[in-house]
Amino acid sequence: MTDYLKRLTTAVDRELLDGIQPGNGTLEAAMHYALTVRGKRLRPLLFLTLLDACRIEAERFIGLASALEIIHTYSLIHDDLPVMDNDDLRRGMPTVHCKFNEAVALLAGDTLLTFAFEKITSAPLAAEKVVAIIGIITRCIGKQGMAQGQALDLEFSGQAEIIADIHRLKTAELIKGSLLAAAQIADFEDHRQQLLARAGIALGMGFQLADDLLDITGAEDKVGKKLNKDQANRSPNAVLYFGEQAVREKIDAYYREAQARVGELGIEFPPFMFLMKSMLYRSQ
Amino acid sequence: MTDYLKRLTTAVDRELLDGIQPGNGTLEAAMHYALTVRGKRLRPLLFLTLLDACRIEAERFIGLASALEIIHTYSLIHDDLPVMDNDDLRRGMPTVHCKFNEAVALLAGDTLLTFAFEKITSAPLAAEKVVAIIGIITRCIGKQGMAQGQALDLEFSGQAEIIADIHRLKTAELIKGSLLAAAQIADFEDHRQQLLARAGIALGMGFQLADDLLDITGAEDKVGKKLNKDQANRSPNAVLYFGEQAVREKIDAYYREAQARVGELGIEFPPFMFLMKSMLYRSQ
Repeated sequence: MTDYLKRLTTAVDRELLDGIQPGNGTLEAAMHYALTVRGKRLRPLLFLTLLDACRIEAERFIGLASALEIIHTYSLIHDDLPVMDNDDLRRGMPTVHCKFNEAVALLAGDTLLTFAFEKITSAPLAAEKVVAIIGIITRCIGKQGMAQGQALDLEFSGQAEIIADIHRLKTAELIKGSLLAAAQIADFEDHRQQLLARAGIALGMGFQLADDLLDITGAEDKVGKKLNKDQANRSPNAVLYFGEQAVREKIDAYYREAQARVGELGIEFPPFMFLMKSMLYRSQ
Repeated sequence: MTDYLKRLTTAVDRELLDGIQPGNGTLEAAMHYALTVRGKRLRPLLFLTLLDACRIEAERFIGLASALEIIHTYSLIHDDLPVMDNDDLRRGMPTVHCKFNEAVALLAGDTLLTFAFEKITSAPLAAEKVVAIIGIITRCIGKQGMAQGQALDLEFSGQAEIIADIHRLKTAELIKGSLLAAAQIADFEDHRQQLLARAGIALGMGFQLADDLLDITGAEDKVGKKLNKDQANRSPNAVLYFGEQAVREKIDAYYREAQARVGELGIEFPPFMFLMKSMLYRSQ
């Protein structure tokens, strides 16, 4: 990772904990714990590098970037709960309900989602843009977005033909939303927003396929969570249904699609291109 | 209830279901179910009658009013879950996790919270006011508001001196927020916002005490949920710690406090006064 991306990651990591006091009781301690566990911070980095690519000073929007990661973290905490995916390990650390308990994990997720919207309201932007961004994000993570993806995932019982829908909703929508939030700030016109949305979906779909590959072929100590769970869980892991070779080819196709749309948009900022590639071709 | 309040309630009930298609799968079916179960709609009614009291046409803000009820509904669904209060009955009907399952109830709550913010973004207001209202609501329901109240409730083990804090956070903050949202629309200056916040807290505290009384002294078929649960649950029910007489006196005191603040504000709209009274002195 370049020094530039490291600097942004450090800024996001610091901002994530801003205003959360682990000494204020169990709820804030659990929120703090969840945000301290190191992640790749991909959604904030996509958002921030896209801003810089558009010659908008990314450093001003670390707060908004961190709100995207907070939303992602809320979704992980709830997805890891025993009634959902029942995961004990996340990013190499005990999941929130294992570290605390299920009730606290449920509330910590709820509160992080709420806190993310509070954070977005204080972005240094015209109120119209704040409202537009909240609209984009709520649509990407709601009943026709991420939450619906998790609902379909729960109901999944082997129908290969809906795996792509689950991936799009559960993973790609928030990635698309992170890019579209930057597009609002950068005043993209409708046509360019649509190109970016297509790039975001391709990127998110490819990223989820890379995740599926890692679950089957990765090294547990590198990935930081229990692997081969998808087979045991009857999860919509594309590798189990289409095979490793087909999934690698799909990843290539999504990468080309994302590159083509980003090319049409004239975005040639190397850290953004590096991020796209590292999301789809990764070993952890 | 007056025809005026009935009309507003009907409008809120209709608006609550707007955009939610129970045929779109389990998630939306669960959201729809939770919103169909009839409630008193107190938060929307307080918000709407306060607008009318300020000579602002309430009918224009049914969408925003329904967002307040949607947030309340999200909190009920999550609070009712087995890992939280473990309630089977709510408003006389099976709770969402009993009607569907725990995972769906968790997701339905998450999605309703998200949907509420989406709804607020489309209120017919200047963007500055939308942002201010989202800021108010997120603070009232977040880590220093409703969610923190539920966290303290979970940890409660008989410390009578924190019962008032739990009631304020868990119940009064969102009632305060509902009033302050109307105050934003009506351009209340700071001093008037503070008076209204005090009225909201008093009203919320009194309302929670009335709920505690009902749990001990009410008729199960009227209240629509299992009673005497608080004793079994070691809940922070004020009646168990201070006795019925003292709680009735506290309710009177909160009622006088709310009336005094509303009097200072010069709000004398009869439906608003009726609502205040019916929240604190009720048999169901």
